[in-house]
Amino acid sequence: MAQPVVPASIQRLIDAFAALPGIGPKSAARLTFYFLRGHTDVALQLAEALTGLIEQTHFCSQCFNVTDTDPCTICANPQRDASTICVVEEPMDVLALERIGHYRGVYHVLHGALSPLDRVFAENLRIAELEARLKRGGVREVILATNPTAEGDYTAAYLLTRLKPYGVRITRLGRGLPVGGDLEYADEVTLLRALEARQDL
Amino acid sequence: MAQPVVPASIQRLIDAFAALPGIGPKSAARLTFYFLRGHTDVALQLAEALTGLIEQTHFCSQCFNVTDTDPCTICANPQRDASTICVVEEPMDVLALERIGHYRGVYHVLHGALSPLDRVFAENLRIAELEARLKRGGVREVILATNPTAEGDYTAAYLLTRLKPYGVRITRLGRGLPVGGDLEYADEVTLLRALEARQDL
Repeated sequence: MAQPVVPASIQRLIDAFAALPGIGPKSAARLTFYFLRGHTDVALQLAEALTGLIEQTHFCSQCFNVTDTDPCTICANPQRDASTICVVEEPMDVLALERIGHYRGVYHVLHGALSPLDRVFAENLRIAELEARLKRGGVREVILATNPTAEGDYTAAYLLTRLKPYGVRITRLGRGLPVGGDLEYADEVTLLRALEARQDL
Repeated sequence: MAQPVVPASIQRLIDAFAALPGIGPKSAARLTFYFLRGHTDVALQLAEALTGLIEQTHFCSQCFNVTDTDPCTICANPQRDASTICVVEEPMDVLALERIGHYRGVYHVLHGALSPLDRVFAENLRIAELEARLKRGGVREVILATNPTAEGDYTAAYLLTRLKPYGVRITRLGRGLPVGGDLEYADEVTLLRALEARQDL
Protein backbone atom coordinates (compact mmCIF):
# COMPACT_ATOMS: atom_id res chain seq x y z
CA MET A 1 0.00 0.00 0.00
CA ALA A 2 2.22 2.78 -1.26
CA GLN A 3 -0.71 5.13 -1.83
CA PRO A 4 -2.20 6.82 1.24
CA VAL A 5 -5.73 5.55 1.77
CA VAL A 6 -7.04 8.45 3.84
CA PRO A 7 -7.05 11.88 2.15
CA ALA A 8 -4.74 14.38 3.87
CA SER A 9 -7.58 16.68 4.98
CA ILE A 10 -9.32 13.77 6.71
CA GLN A 11 -6.15 12.43 8.32
CA ARG A 12 -5.40 15.92 9.62
CA LEU A 13 -8.74 16.10 11.45
CA ILE A 14 -8.36 12.56 12.80
CA ASP A 15 -4.94 13.54 14.18
CA ALA A 16 -6.30 16.78 15.65
CA PHE A 17 -9.05 14.92 17.48
CA ALA A 18 -6.70 12.16 18.62
CA ALA A 19 -4.47 14.86 20.18
CA LEU A 20 -7.26 15.72 22.65
CA PRO A 21 -7.26 14.10 26.09
CA GLY A 22 -9.52 11.07 26.36
CA ILE A 23 -10.03 10.67 22.60
CA GLY A 24 -8.26 7.68 21.05
CA PRO A 25 -7.52 7.15 17.34
CA LYS A 26 -10.70 5.10 16.83
CA SER A 27 -13.00 7.71 18.37
CA ALA A 28 -11.12 10.39 16.40
CA ALA A 29 -11.85 8.57 13.14
CA ARG A 30 -15.48 8.03 14.13
CA LEU A 31 -15.95 11.75 14.87
CA THR A 32 -14.29 12.76 11.60
CA PHE A 33 -16.43 10.45 9.51
CA TYR A 34 -19.50 11.67 11.37
CA PHE A 35 -18.90 15.11 9.84
CA LEU A 36 -18.47 13.52 6.42
CA ARG A 37 -21.92 11.92 6.70
CA GLY A 38 -23.54 15.27 5.98
CA HIS A 39 -22.92 16.94 9.33
CA THR A 40 -20.79 19.78 7.98
CA ASP A 41 -22.90 22.32 9.89
CA VAL A 42 -21.83 20.70 13.18
CA ALA A 43 -18.18 20.82 12.03
CA LEU A 44 -18.45 24.53 11.16
CA GLN A 45 -20.12 25.29 14.49
CA LEU A 46 -17.31 23.54 16.34
CA ALA A 47 -14.64 25.36 14.31
CA GLU A 48 -16.27 28.73 15.04
CA ALA A 49 -16.67 27.94 18.74
CA LEU A 50 -12.98 27.00 18.93
CA THR A 51 -11.85 30.23 17.27
CA GLY A 52 -14.34 32.18 19.40
CA LEU A 53 -12.91 30.63 22.56
CA ILE A 54 -9.40 31.71 21.68
CA GLU A 55 -10.35 35.19 20.53
CA GLN A 56 -12.83 36.13 23.24
CA THR A 57 -11.70 34.33 26.36
CA HIS A 58 -9.08 35.71 28.73
CA PHE A 59 -8.42 35.73 32.47
CA CYS A 60 -10.35 37.98 34.86
CA SER A 61 -7.89 40.58 36.17
CA GLN A 62 -9.19 40.03 39.71
CA CYS A 63 -9.79 36.31 40.20
CA PHE A 64 -8.02 34.86 37.10
CA ASN A 65 -11.01 32.74 36.21
CA VAL A 66 -11.66 32.42 32.46
CA THR A 67 -14.08 35.07 31.24
CA ASP A 68 -15.14 37.04 28.19
CA THR A 69 -15.76 40.20 30.23
CA ASP A 70 -13.38 41.91 32.67
CA PRO A 71 -13.96 41.70 35.57
CA CYS A 72 -15.80 38.38 35.25
CA THR A 73 -19.51 38.13 36.00
CA ILE A 74 -18.82 36.78 39.50
CA CYS A 75 -16.33 39.54 40.50
CA ALA A 76 -18.59 42.19 38.90
CA ASN A 77 -21.71 40.97 40.73
CA PRO A 78 -22.43 43.38 43.65
CA GLN A 79 -24.49 40.65 45.34
CA ARG A 80 -21.43 38.45 45.81
CA ASP A 81 -19.51 38.80 49.09
CA ALA A 82 -16.09 40.16 48.05
CA SER A 83 -14.72 39.64 51.58
CA THR A 84 -14.70 35.84 51.17
CA ILE A 85 -12.27 34.39 48.62
CA CYS A 86 -12.41 30.73 47.69
CA VAL A 87 -9.02 29.61 46.27
CA VAL A 88 -9.22 26.84 43.64
CA GLU A 89 -6.75 25.19 41.29
CA GLU A 90 -8.62 25.38 37.98
CA PRO A 91 -11.51 27.23 36.30
CA MET A 92 -13.46 23.93 36.24
CA ASP A 93 -13.41 23.94 40.04
CA VAL A 94 -15.28 27.27 40.02
CA LEU A 95 -17.90 25.64 37.83
CA ALA A 96 -18.23 22.70 40.25
CA LEU A 97 -18.67 25.00 43.24
CA GLU A 98 -21.12 27.28 41.42
CA ARG A 99 -23.23 24.27 40.52
CA ILE A 100 -24.24 23.77 44.16
CA GLY A 101 -25.69 27.32 44.04
CA HIS A 102 -24.84 27.96 47.68
CA TYR A 103 -21.53 29.85 47.79
CA ARG A 104 -21.97 33.64 47.72
CA GLY A 105 -18.31 34.74 47.94
CA VAL A 106 -15.78 35.29 45.16
CA TYR A 107 -12.96 33.11 43.82
CA HIS A 108 -9.26 33.06 43.08
CA VAL A 109 -7.98 30.63 40.46
CA LEU A 110 -4.36 29.53 40.99
CA HIS A 111 -4.09 27.75 37.60
CA GLY A 112 -2.49 24.65 39.02
CA ALA A 113 -1.06 23.26 42.25
CA LEU A 114 2.48 23.30 43.57
CA SER A 115 4.41 20.32 42.27
CA PRO A 116 8.19 20.75 42.49
CA LEU A 117 8.75 17.47 40.60
CA ASP A 118 6.80 18.87 37.63
CA ARG A 119 8.63 22.20 38.06
CA VAL A 120 5.50 24.02 39.21
CA PHE A 121 6.67 26.47 41.86
CA ALA A 122 4.90 29.28 43.72
CA GLU A 123 5.90 31.81 41.05
CA ASN A 124 4.20 29.71 38.35
CA LEU A 125 0.82 30.00 40.09
CA ARG A 126 -1.32 33.11 40.70
CA ILE A 127 -0.20 33.26 44.33
CA ALA A 128 1.38 36.73 44.24
CA GLU A 129 -1.92 38.01 42.78
CA LEU A 130 -3.84 36.40 45.66
CA GLU A 131 -1.46 38.05 48.14
CA ALA A 132 -2.04 41.41 46.42
CA ARG A 133 -5.79 41.03 46.97
CA LEU A 134 -5.20 40.50 50.70
CA LYS A 135 -2.84 43.49 50.81
CA ARG A 136 -5.55 45.70 49.30
CA GLY A 137 -7.68 44.76 52.35
CA GLY A 138 -11.39 44.09 52.77
CA VAL A 139 -10.89 40.30 52.88
CA ARG A 140 -12.15 38.47 55.97
CA GLU A 141 -11.87 34.82 54.96
CA VAL A 142 -9.83 32.73 52.52
CA ILE A 143 -11.24 29.25 51.85
CA LEU A 144 -8.52 26.91 50.53
CA ALA A 145 -10.41 24.65 48.11
CA THR A 146 -7.46 22.97 46.40
CA ASN A 147 -7.93 19.32 45.41
CA PRO A 148 -7.72 16.64 48.14
CA THR A 149 -4.50 15.30 46.56
CA ALA A 150 -0.85 15.39 47.62
CA GLU A 151 -0.22 18.47 45.42
CA GLY A 152 -3.43 20.19 46.51
CA ASP A 153 -2.73 19.61 50.20
CA TYR A 154 0.85 20.80 49.78
CA THR A 155 -0.38 23.95 48.02
CA ALA A 156 -2.91 24.58 50.81
CA ALA A 157 -0.20 24.16 53.46
CA TYR A 158 2.08 26.56 51.58
CA LEU A 159 -0.70 29.14 51.22
CA LEU A 160 -1.53 28.86 54.93
CA THR A 161 2.05 29.83 55.85
CA ARG A 162 2.27 32.57 53.26
CA LEU A 163 -1.12 34.18 53.98
CA LYS A 164 -1.07 33.91 57.79
CA PRO A 165 0.67 37.32 58.27
CA TYR A 166 -2.40 39.06 56.80
CA GLY A 167 -4.48 38.06 59.82
CA VAL A 168 -7.51 36.84 57.86
CA ARG A 169 -9.47 33.69 58.68
CA ILE A 170 -8.13 30.76 56.63
CA THR A 171 -10.28 27.63 56.24
CA ARG A 172 -10.29 24.58 54.03
CA LEU A 173 -13.07 22.34 52.72
CA GLY A 174 -14.24 19.54 55.05
CA ARG A 175 -12.83 16.06 54.60
CA GLY A 176 -14.78 12.85 55.01
CA LEU A 177 -16.96 10.34 53.28
CA PRO A 178 -18.54 11.46 50.01
CA VAL A 179 -22.34 11.51 50.07
CA GLY A 180 -23.73 8.36 48.47
CA GLY A 181 -20.43 6.61 49.08
CA ASP A 182 -20.12 3.20 50.69
CA LEU A 183 -18.05 2.83 53.89
CA GLU A 184 -16.92 -0.58 52.71
CA TYR A 185 -15.42 0.82 49.53
CA ALA A 186 -13.92 4.03 50.95
CA ASP A 187 -10.12 4.09 50.79
CA GLU A 188 -8.13 4.16 54.02
CA VAL A 189 -7.04 7.80 53.82
CA THR A 190 -10.62 8.98 53.27
CA LEU A 191 -11.78 6.87 56.24
CA LEU A 192 -8.97 8.27 58.41
CA ARG A 193 -9.90 11.85 57.45
CA ALA A 194 -13.60 11.08 58.11
CA LEU A 195 -12.70 9.75 61.56
CA GLU A 196 -10.58 12.83 62.32
CA ALA A 197 -13.37 15.12 61.11
CA ARG A 198 -16.10 13.36 63.12
CA GLN A 199 -18.79 15.67 64.45
CA ASP A 200 -20.86 15.66 67.65
CA LEU A 201 -24.53 14.89 67.18
CA MET B 1 -28.15 32.29 40.25
CA ALA B 2 -29.46 34.87 37.81
CA GLN B 3 -26.00 35.56 36.36
CA PRO B 4 -24.58 33.00 33.95
CA VAL B 5 -21.54 31.38 35.49
CA VAL B 6 -19.92 30.16 32.28
CA PRO B 7 -18.89 32.85 29.76
CA ALA B 8 -20.81 32.60 26.48
CA SER B 9 -17.74 31.75 24.40
CA ILE B 10 -16.95 28.82 26.70
CA GLN B 11 -20.54 27.58 26.84
CA ARG B 12 -20.68 27.70 23.05
CA LEU B 13 -17.69 25.35 22.74
CA ILE B 14 -19.04 23.01 25.43
CA ASP B 15 -22.34 22.82 23.50
CA ALA B 16 -20.53 22.25 20.19
CA PHE B 17 -18.55 19.34 21.65
CA ALA B 18 -21.60 17.90 23.41
CA ALA B 19 -23.39 17.83 20.03
CA LEU B 20 -20.89 15.26 18.75
CA PRO B 21 -21.77 11.55 18.99
CA GLY B 22 -20.27 9.81 22.00
CA ILE B 23 -19.31 13.03 23.81
CA GLY B 24 -21.42 13.85 26.87
CA PRO B 25 -21.71 17.25 28.59
CA LYS B 26 -19.02 16.35 31.15
CA SER B 27 -16.46 15.30 28.52
CA ALA B 28 -17.39 18.40 26.52
CA ALA B 29 -16.61 20.64 29.50
CA ARG B 30 -13.37 18.77 30.18
CA LEU B 31 -12.21 19.21 26.58
CA THR B 32 -13.10 22.91 26.59
CA PHE B 33 -11.23 23.61 29.81
CA TYR B 34 -8.29 21.63 28.48
CA PHE B 35 -7.88 24.31 25.79
CA LEU B 36 -8.12 27.02 28.43
CA ARG B 37 -5.19 25.49 30.32
CA GLY B 38 -2.78 26.90 27.76
CA HIS B 39 -3.50 24.50 24.90
CA THR B 40 -4.74 27.14 22.48
CA ASP B 41 -2.45 25.76 19.74
CA VAL B 42 -4.33 22.44 19.87
CA ALA B 43 -7.64 24.32 19.62
CA LEU B 44 -6.42 26.30 16.60
CA GLN B 45 -5.17 23.13 14.91
CA LEU B 46 -8.53 21.46 15.42
CA ALA B 47 -10.40 24.51 14.09
CA GLU B 48 -8.20 24.61 10.99
CA ALA B 49 -8.55 20.85 10.41
CA LEU B 50 -12.35 21.18 10.64
CA THR B 51 -12.48 24.02 8.12
CA GLY B 52 -9.99 22.16 5.92
CA LEU B 53 -12.17 19.06 5.97
CA ILE B 54 -15.20 21.01 4.78
CA GLU B 55 -13.33 23.03 2.17
CA GLN B 56 -11.16 20.29 0.70
CA THR B 57 -13.14 17.10 1.05
CA HIS B 58 -15.75 15.99 -1.45
CA PHE B 59 -16.95 12.73 -2.96
CA CYS B 60 -15.00 10.87 -5.63
CA SER B 61 -17.04 11.12 -8.84
CA GLN B 62 -16.49 7.39 -9.48
CA CYS B 63 -16.77 5.55 -6.18
CA PHE B 64 -18.29 8.29 -3.94
CA ASN B 65 -15.71 7.72 -1.24
CA VAL B 66 -14.54 10.88 0.54
CA THR B 67 -11.46 12.35 -1.09
CA ASP B 68 -9.53 15.56 -1.62
CA THR B 69 -8.59 14.62 -5.17
CA ASP B 70 -10.90 13.50 -8.00
CA PRO B 71 -10.86 10.65 -8.80
CA CYS B 72 -9.74 9.41 -5.38
CA THR B 73 -6.32 7.79 -4.91
CA ILE B 74 -7.85 4.30 -5.08
CA CYS B 75 -9.81 4.89 -8.32
CA ALA B 76 -6.82 6.73 -9.84
CA ASN B 77 -4.37 3.94 -8.97
CA PRO B 78 -3.62 1.92 -12.16
CA GLN B 79 -2.50 -1.01 -9.99
CA ARG B 80 -6.01 -1.48 -8.61
CA ASP B 81 -8.30 -3.92 -10.41
CA ALA B 82 -11.12 -1.73 -11.74
CA SER B 83 -13.13 -4.81 -12.79
CA THR B 84 -13.92 -5.73 -9.16
CA ILE B 85 -16.15 -3.34 -7.22
CA CYS B 86 -16.64 -3.75 -3.48
CA VAL B 87 -19.90 -2.06 -2.39
CA VAL B 88 -19.89 -0.65 1.16
CA GLU B 89 -22.25 1.50 3.20
CA GLU B 90 -19.87 4.16 4.53
CA PRO B 91 -16.41 5.66 3.83
CA MET B 92 -15.22 4.18 7.16
CA ASP B 93 -15.89 0.72 5.75
CA VAL B 94 -13.38 1.43 2.95
CA LEU B 95 -10.84 2.27 5.64
CA ALA B 96 -11.55 -0.99 7.47
CA LEU B 97 -11.11 -3.05 4.29
CA GLU B 98 -7.97 -1.18 3.23
CA ARG B 99 -6.44 -1.85 6.62
CA ILE B 100 -6.17 -5.56 5.86
CA GLY B 101 -3.98 -4.59 2.85
CA HIS B 102 -5.26 -7.52 0.79
CA TYR B 103 -8.07 -6.21 -1.43
CA ARG B 104 -6.82 -4.96 -4.82
CA GLY B 105 -10.14 -3.97 -6.45
CA VAL B 106 -12.02 -0.68 -6.23
CA TYR B 107 -14.98 0.46 -4.14
CA HIS B 108 -18.44 1.97 -4.35
CA VAL B 109 -19.76 3.82 -1.30
CA LEU B 110 -23.58 3.81 -0.98
CA HIS B 111 -23.66 6.35 1.87
CA GLY B 112 -26.10 4.36 3.94
CA ALA B 113 -28.28 1.28 3.83
CA LEU B 114 -31.91 0.89 2.80
CA SER B 115 -34.19 1.51 5.75
CA PRO B 116 -37.78 2.32 4.77
CA LEU B 117 -38.71 3.05 8.39
CA ASP B 118 -36.06 5.81 8.50
CA ARG B 119 -37.20 6.94 5.03
CA VAL B 120 -33.96 5.82 3.37
CA PHE B 121 -35.00 4.49 -0.04
CA ALA B 122 -32.98 3.34 -3.07
CA GLU B 123 -32.99 6.87 -4.52
CA ASN B 124 -31.35 8.22 -1.34
CA LEU B 125 -28.32 5.97 -1.80
CA ARG B 126 -25.70 5.98 -4.57
CA ILE B 127 -27.33 2.95 -6.24
CA ALA B 128 -28.10 4.59 -9.62
CA GLU B 129 -24.42 5.60 -9.77
CA LEU B 130 -23.38 1.99 -9.12
CA GLU B 131 -25.71 0.84 -11.88
CA ALA B 132 -24.16 3.41 -14.23
CA ARG B 133 -20.72 1.91 -13.56
CA LEU B 134 -22.00 -1.52 -14.56
CA LYS B 135 -23.64 -0.07 -17.67
CA ARG B 136 -20.32 1.44 -18.75
CA GLY B 137 -18.96 -2.13 -18.74
CA GLY B 138 -15.61 -3.62 -17.79
CA VAL B 139 -16.91 -4.90 -14.43
CA ARG B 140 -16.61 -8.62 -13.72
CA GLU B 141 -17.48 -8.88 -10.04
CA VAL B 142 -19.48 -6.89 -7.50
CA ILE B 143 -18.77 -7.78 -3.85
CA LEU B 144 -21.66 -6.75 -1.61
CA ALA B 145 -19.95 -5.74 1.64
CA THR B 146 -22.87 -4.08 3.41
CA ASN B 147 -23.03 -4.50 7.18
CA PRO B 148 -24.24 -7.86 8.59
CA THR B 149 -27.37 -6.15 9.96
CA ALA B 150 -31.05 -6.25 8.97
CA GLU B 151 -30.64 -3.04 6.90
CA GLY B 152 -27.36 -4.20 5.37
CA ASP B 153 -28.75 -7.61 4.41
CA TYR B 154 -31.89 -5.99 2.97
CA THR B 155 -29.74 -3.61 0.93
CA ALA B 156 -27.62 -6.52 -0.36
CA ALA B 157 -30.75 -8.46 -1.34
CA TYR B 158 -32.14 -5.40 -3.15
CA LEU B 159 -28.84 -4.83 -4.98
CA LEU B 160 -28.69 -8.50 -6.01
CA THR B 161 -32.10 -8.20 -7.75
CA ARG B 162 -31.29 -4.86 -9.31
CA LEU B 163 -27.81 -5.75 -10.58
CA LYS B 164 -28.53 -9.30 -11.78
CA PRO B 165 -29.55 -8.17 -15.32
CA TYR B 166 -25.99 -6.94 -15.94
CA GLY B 167 -24.70 -10.51 -15.85
CA VAL B 168 -21.72 -9.83 -13.60
CA ARG B 169 -20.64 -12.11 -10.77
CA ILE B 170 -22.22 -10.92 -7.50
CA THR B 171 -20.74 -12.12 -4.17
CA ARG B 172 -21.03 -11.14 -0.55
CA LEU B 173 -18.61 -11.33 2.39
CA GLY B 174 -18.46 -14.65 4.22
CA ARG B 175 -20.50 -15.12 7.37
CA GLY B 176 -19.40 -17.06 10.40
CA LEU B 177 -17.55 -16.87 13.64
CA PRO B 178 -15.26 -13.87 14.09
CA VAL B 179 -11.59 -14.77 14.55
CA GLY B 180 -10.67 -14.73 18.22
CA GLY B 181 -14.33 -15.14 19.14
CA ASP B 182 -15.64 -17.72 21.57
CA LEU B 183 -18.22 -20.28 20.41
CA GLU B 184 -19.87 -20.12 23.80
CA TYR B 185 -20.50 -16.39 23.53
CA ALA B 186 -21.49 -16.24 19.86
CA ASP B 187 -25.11 -15.21 19.34
CA GLU B 188 -27.53 -17.68 17.75
CA VAL B 189 -27.75 -15.97 14.37
CA THR B 190 -23.96 -15.88 14.00
CA LEU B 191 -23.78 -19.57 14.95
CA LEU B 192 -26.54 -20.41 12.45
CA ARG B 193 -24.71 -18.52 9.69
CA ALA B 194 -21.44 -20.24 10.64
CA LEU B 195 -23.14 -23.62 10.40
CA GLU B 196 -24.66 -22.76 7.01
CA ALA B 197 -21.28 -21.52 5.76
CA ARG B 198 -19.35 -24.60 6.97
CA GLN B 199 -16.48 -25.63 4.72
CA ASP B 200 -15.01 -29.00 3.79
CA LEU B 201 -11.58 -29.71 5.18
